[in-house]
Amino acid sequence: MSRRGKTFIVSGPSGVGKSTVLNALFEGRDDLFFSVSATTRGPRNGEIDGKDYHFITADAFRAMIEADAFLEYAEYVGNFYGTPMRYVDEALEDGLDVILDIEIQGAVQVYQKRPDTVRIFIAPPSWEELERRLTARGTDTPEKIQKRLLRAKVELDSASGYDYFVINDTVEEAVEELRAILRAEHCRPAERIPLILGR
Amino acid sequence: MSRRGKTFIVSGPSGVGKSTVLNALFEGRDDLFFSVSATTRGPRNGEIDGKDYHFITADAFRAMIEADAFLEYAEYVGNFYGTPMRYVDEALEDGLDVILDIEIQGAVQVYQKRPDTVRIFIAPPSWEELERRLTARGTDTPEKIQKRLLRAKVELDSASGYDYFVINDTVEEAVEELRAILRAEHCRPAERIPLILGR
Repeated sequence: MSRRGKTFIVSGPSGVGKSTVLNALFEGRDDLFFSVSATTRGPRNGEIDGKDYHFITADAFRAMIEADAFLEYAEYVGNFYGTPMRYVDEALEDGLDVILDIEIQGAVQVYQKRPDTVRIFIAPPSWEELERRLTARGTDTPEKIQKRLLRAKVELDSASGYDYFVINDTVEEAVEELRAILRAEHCRPAERIPLILGR
Repeated sequence: MSRRGKTFIVSGPSGVGKSTVLNALFEGRDDLFFSVSATTRGPRNGEIDGKDYHFITADAFRAMIEADAFLEYAEYVGNFYGTPMRYVDEALEDGLDVILDIEIQGAVQVYQKRPDTVRIFIAPPSWEELERRLTARGTDTPEKIQKRLLRAKVELDSASGYDYFVINDTVEEAVEELRAILRAEHCRPAERIPLILGR
């Protein structure tokens, strides 16, 4: 059964384990495409162009903004980050589902451009557990952890309009929920009725 | 993780194989509840009260209508059929997901009363395949089969507002899609946010 791909936004607070869940989701799946962001910041140690980011100049980034070539973009501490539309559209036409790992502000831009995008928020089982995970990483001071927790609460409020909340209690369960959501979203009437009627 | 049950309507045209799919869905699942309809018609050969239908008198049925005790009801060729609210609500409170095997007219009534109900339409892979299945049953005349096909097209049109279309190409795939939909629908923010916030 041939099908067109769908776009899924995956957001989540710092420390929730989103990257681990997404890596596990992609295992053994050749029907999924991970959208790599473009950025004007330079590559850090070990980062690979085209894999971690598309590293481009500020001039190139500006030209892409003017050409409306981004699904979303934003500036963080002097550098620009954005989702190039081209790779996403190529993947969708190839029938792949596209995963956008972006923040809530970016999600708002994408959703305004493309309301058929599905928005998934990866959430911790509880706030106590998120605090525990941030502490266990050992990378932040207690003040920084409190800041991250506050930011996470703001994000959760902003994400209340998302379509799905996947709880990352265990990675296995979170991945199963993601797979179920992807599968269910391909059962929507807009996709299915033309198939049944042979159009 | 404690949760409240959800209600899922499953409709589909005659000959699509809905009963087979639902039987397979229920295998090994103790978190699902199949809603048994009440009817004023007498039991047919082998039908068991409380399993196939709740067989009740016309007076009892009328009293239930007046007490607003049905989620939906309708009359077919002189007999009444309805979904008693009580068993559904008891199951939901026990955390079970409730499956309502009802027609589109009934679905409209349930959805008006409870807009959080999820509506799933079981569809054939194509009209040619539905015709083939109806013919293969060997129970209907060609004229009757054409009538059923016409009715199925009307149903498909009426069901275009359903949430999901599950295609019964193979029973295994249809059941996997149903399971994915049930699982995905438990990831909605309204159910998840209170869990995360511990409310």
